[in-house]
Amino acid sequence: MKQFSVAMLGYGIAGKAFARILNQTHDEIMKNTGYDVRVVAITTGSRGSLYCMDGIDLKEATRQLEEEGEFDPESPIFSTMNSMEVVETVDYDAVLELTPLNIFTGLPAADHIRKALNRGKHVVSANKGPLAWYYRELRDLAKEKGVCFFFETTVMAGTPVFNMADNCLQYCKIDKVEGIFNATTNYILKEMTKGVPMDEIMRAGREGGFMEADASMDTKGWDAAAKLTVLLNVLMDAGITPDMIDRTGIEEVTPEDIEAAASRGNVIKLLCSGTMDENGKVTGKVAPGEVPVGDVFTDENLVAVLSLYTDLMGKLTILQYGLETTQTGYGVFIDTVRILDNIK
Amino acid sequence: MKQFSVAMLGYGIAGKAFARILNQTHDEIMKNTGYDVRVVAITTGSRGSLYCMDGIDLKEATRQLEEEGEFDPESPIFSTMNSMEVVETVDYDAVLELTPLNIFTGLPAADHIRKALNRGKHVVSANKGPLAWYYRELRDLAKEKGVCFFFETTVMAGTPVFNMADNCLQYCKIDKVEGIFNATTNYILKEMTKGVPMDEIMRAGREGGFMEADASMDTKGWDAAAKLTVLLNVLMDAGITPDMIDRTGIEEVTPEDIEAAASRGNVIKLLCSGTMDENGKVTGKVAPGEVPVGDVFTDENLVAVLSLYTDLMGKLTILQYGLETTQTGYGVFIDTVRILDNIK
Repeated sequence: MKQFSVAMLGYGIAGKAFARILNQTHDEIMKNTGYDVRVVAITTGSRGSLYCMDGIDLKEATRQLEEEGEFDPESPIFSTMNSMEVVETVDYDAVLELTPLNIFTGLPAADHIRKALNRGKHVVSANKGPLAWYYRELRDLAKEKGVCFFFETTVMAGTPVFNMADNCLQYCKIDKVEGIFNATTNYILKEMTKGVPMDEIMRAGREGGFMEADASMDTKGWDAAAKLTVLLNVLMDAGITPDMIDRTGIEEVTPEDIEAAASRGNVIKLLCSGTMDENGKVTGKVAPGEVPVGDVFTDENLVAVLSLYTDLMGKLTILQYGLETTQTGYGVFIDTVRILDNIK
Repeated sequence: MKQFSVAMLGYGIAGKAFARILNQTHDEIMKNTGYDVRVVAITTGSRGSLYCMDGIDLKEATRQLEEEGEFDPESPIFSTMNSMEVVETVDYDAVLELTPLNIFTGLPAADHIRKALNRGKHVVSANKGPLAWYYRELRDLAKEKGVCFFFETTVMAGTPVFNMADNCLQYCKIDKVEGIFNATTNYILKEMTKGVPMDEIMRAGREGGFMEADASMDTKGWDAAAKLTVLLNVLMDAGITPDMIDRTGIEEVTPEDIEAAASRGNVIKLLCSGTMDENGKVTGKVAPGEVPVGDVFTDENLVAVLSLYTDLMGKLTILQYGLETTQTGYGVFIDTVRILDNIK
């Protein structure tokens, strides 16, 4: 039995869901892989950190944050280390980058990842910033150091995208992607189509806990553009950044536009697409567009959808349902499991 | 550089498509894995066999069958071995079971697979018969012998199903599957919905090359039932056979039924579903059923669709488009590649 030590940078929705899944599967993983997976460090922005090489009680960590609003400063495993200090000094095997996103810089998350890879440590990132801004550099660095660098959660949470491409579409060339990647704008447009006024939509979304107080990163199309960038960088080696995406948000979409689309039998969606031309040049676009009612993209219940166009397998579409936070945690979890698959 | 020797039992649509893809990717595979994949034996039912441990020229093999209707009996690599003789005597690393399906017995394909596994050889099956009738036995035998046994093609051709479950949904419990698995009945029902008379539908389907002269295995629901059985056996360890599926075909579906469904805003589809109850008992059903227009299952262009219900990832839906034979070949190909991934 060998310990596999994990450091978690950030302990929000994804982190807590990961912790739940790990607790639930720990013994089965140990049986299957021989690895005793333990979380040895957890950092938060302003609620303290935990550090214990024997492994942190994750249920207790979650309880402290939820009931006391911070990690207990009296706890013997309480620590004042910040994320970079953990990345630089702790003896972990893999680091999970779960810190808040800066969609315009990818920092400081990219610095955490670069440092960990340079130390020869495996990295899982649920943060799409580093992938959108520094993918090639980080990928090459991971390769040079012979370590894993996985990031399933960055697009469509735990829905198989990168893992599927890696394992199930080997030797396929992907030259086009299409999809709806942003759940918030998909929700807003759906409610607008039902005739719900915008202020009610926003209130219901915030009360439901799936819309941020400032939803402008969603409505301006930045979140979708960042996810499209990640897809194009990873699946087509595009080498682009989010500012290079031809981007239009949904802010200009009016109830009249939606009615006009409906009169044509169509629904307005925030569509993302990316293509590679004959010379290998990749371009991406995010913009509201009309989709005929009945197309899979108009399914009332879907949260996100992705179509991949390949040479050997034709077109393939995968749909994500449910906004469950578990799915976000599962993305981080399956990446961690993939590391174990790679090292065993 | 190590040779990886493959024996192909059958050289029909799947076999020829596999050969094309292998020719196209051979050098890249060698670069990635160090394995020089060569086909050393090919059998057919009545058109001769080929056997050459240095590797068969697949392009030439395909040309002979297509232009001469049989393998050239004058060729120095021509052989009269049948499939079982190849399985028993040839020194291959993996055998590809591509012989014609017997949906009611799974034979002789299951015998080929059993024999190969007993010799400690890896097996890829595009034939769903053995999976529908002998899955547990063959799975356990492969495990005991420490060899790979893959069968992606048996459900939805090369669309990621079993490979996705194995790699991308690890530690998820699947307790329900739903889908449309039979392309022929999906086509028939779609054309009926447009008002095309049955004899015209059948003629167009046969002329298009995607419907067999006798489509009764499709219209009676046997093909869908066999695929559902495979899914339930593999994903839920159901231990069932196709005769245990509650099965109704589409033969009783009338134009009047379709009109009545349309008046309710619905479309009739041949739906497959399987569930596991609280005691772990798995039951499956294949029957025509109504689906609301706009549901992904009603997408005009889809060939097949599968929804998986899991504990950790919620509901996940994957859609197959295009009847391209390449996809069938790709299923066999990706299984072969997975073997290389496992032994390298």
